[in-house]
Amino acid sequence: MSQAVRNRRIVLAARPRGEPVDGDFRLDDEVLPLPRKGQVLLRNHWLSLDPYMRGRMNAGRSYVRPLEIGDTLGGATVAQVVESMHPEWAPGDWVLAYGGWQDYVVAEGDTLTRRLDPTTLPLTTALGVYGMPGFTAYAGLHEIGRPKPGETLVVAAASGPVGATVGQIAKLRGARVVGIAGGERKVAHLRDELGFDVALDHRAPDFAAQLAAAVPDGIDVYFENVGGKVFEAVLPLLNDFARVPVCGLVAHYNDTAPPPGPDRLPQAMGLILSRHLTVRGFIQSDFIGLYPEFLREMGAWLREDRILYREDVVDGLEHAPQGLIGLLRGDNFGKRLVRIVP
Amino acid sequence: MSQAVRNRRIVLAARPRGEPVDGDFRLDDEVLPLPRKGQVLLRNHWLSLDPYMRGRMNAGRSYVRPLEIGDTLGGATVAQVVESMHPEWAPGDWVLAYGGWQDYVVAEGDTLTRRLDPTTLPLTTALGVYGMPGFTAYAGLHEIGRPKPGETLVVAAASGPVGATVGQIAKLRGARVVGIAGGERKVAHLRDELGFDVALDHRAPDFAAQLAAAVPDGIDVYFENVGGKVFEAVLPLLNDFARVPVCGLVAHYNDTAPPPGPDRLPQAMGLILSRHLTVRGFIQSDFIGLYPEFLREMGAWLREDRILYREDVVDGLEHAPQGLIGLLRGDNFGKRLVRIVP
Repeated sequence: MSQAVRNRRIVLAARPRGEPVDGDFRLDDEVLPLPRKGQVLLRNHWLSLDPYMRGRMNAGRSYVRPLEIGDTLGGATVAQVVESMHPEWAPGDWVLAYGGWQDYVVAEGDTLTRRLDPTTLPLTTALGVYGMPGFTAYAGLHEIGRPKPGETLVVAAASGPVGATVGQIAKLRGARVVGIAGGERKVAHLRDELGFDVALDHRAPDFAAQLAAAVPDGIDVYFENVGGKVFEAVLPLLNDFARVPVCGLVAHYNDTAPPPGPDRLPQAMGLILSRHLTVRGFIQSDFIGLYPEFLREMGAWLREDRILYREDVVDGLEHAPQGLIGLLRGDNFGKRLVRIVP
Repeated sequence: MSQAVRNRRIVLAARPRGEPVDGDFRLDDEVLPLPRKGQVLLRNHWLSLDPYMRGRMNAGRSYVRPLEIGDTLGGATVAQVVESMHPEWAPGDWVLAYGGWQDYVVAEGDTLTRRLDPTTLPLTTALGVYGMPGFTAYAGLHEIGRPKPGETLVVAAASGPVGATVGQIAKLRGARVVGIAGGERKVAHLRDELGFDVALDHRAPDFAAQLAAAVPDGIDVYFENVGGKVFEAVLPLLNDFARVPVCGLVAHYNDTAPPPGPDRLPQAMGLILSRHLTVRGFIQSDFIGLYPEFLREMGAWLREDRILYREDVVDGLEHAPQGLIGLLRGDNFGKRLVRIVP
């Protein structure tokens, strides 16, 4: 190409107060510099939308430094090399990149660690079940949840890419799995397609009673990616020595202040003590040493259709903001992706 | 002796509402049966008073089944064999027993696992630093807290038998130790006798600010045995990957209802997630496999005066209720014991 590239990108226009709105994002335009020695020019084809992105829009301490106003929003992408000044990358190569909410990105070739083969699994799996969300499920179960055969595992947001993978891996490990989702379609998917032992709708007025009835032997692993009233219903049902890997709290990402009382923290700490619970926060990169094992084992499961996945595609970079806003409300049904290149 | 033994014992007269009162206990009297084959008659000389006893006075699920009204209160004792129908025990032998709040107990000889040697360490250490509280400190640090040299550990109730031992072991392991206690005498003890790096009084009006100033590098291990406002001050200061072993929550044992709002649980879960925290409840028996190592290592430390301890003695079985009531208020200065035999 070797000529200036016009790049559309979505930047943080304002810090959201509570739920993000359209005006917190702005579609911007720039001319990209050409790649220099060691760099590659990538075209983003698919952008991953993930709940963690909400946290990065706030000021203050989070996983990583927050975005500044005017910064391009970050995100994992499936991208194709357009131009390369790096010996290991050639035009046409596919790669998993942290390409962001934009058409193109210039990246250091050395930072691109995962080459994608479009002939084995669909490329988009690298953003979902065979990427960060799937590895979150795998690592959180392997290192913290450790479901044993016959134990009961509960997971919420269970039709999402983390939850669905958690439940299916736990089934493969011999656990009894209760999945929680919002709405009858998702519940039916968990029950009829993913083979969960029980699937519950958290919108049911008697949800807490349904959950209690669904776990006659209590809960040994609660994979926490939601928080809110699901956690509230789970807490009293946890067994002695239960494990609670915490990888997300999407019910709270739009909170602007602590909810009204009573203060349930002392009661929760009391249960942690009296039931010998382990509650542990993590992100998948904490266990990056497991990644090769994940790629091997999950790759085999996917090729053998022992793990299934769903995708939920938003068309067009310009619709990514609405895609994220909806994701935070639970509108997605499966892994939410933005198709940037039609 | 071989004649009927009159036994004074203290029974649960009523379930406390909030802080226990004298009327919740009753001094009772009974004639003990003589030991049968395999049993021993023990005279309790020293009774341990421990915060966990408050939980057992409630109805409902706790570590173990709750007491019923009329039951003798349980507790660890240093006892001497009076009469033995068991081949391995002889009159005069000293033993660590779960003898309860009473003068005598008939025990199965096979259940007595720890013979005490009065010529090495003082017998009472088997109820404190060289017993359950000391092992709680040792095991919680070894299995969960894992302080590394140079890391910062914070412990509350730091002049009590668990806290003082936690702080001293952490110092031996190379950590920087901040101890928290109530009142100037206790604070001076931590600083001047136990050699903690910093000692703070939680009663100070600016306690939270003092704590923040005392941990310029944040907190890597918070050994939780108190809860309440100390935990509140600690939470925002925890570092990424901090560990919080939870072995007690004495500030809440007399709670009758959740405190007023706001609800701090979502915020705490948010910190567990964003800072990759591990919060784990335990009791020492979860790690009983470590006990021989504890006896060996702690025994050496005690003989070499590398670990110091304090005792706080209440005289007379009839004063045990007031001893426990005061313990739950933090009136004790060191390990609280009841001397049953003058």
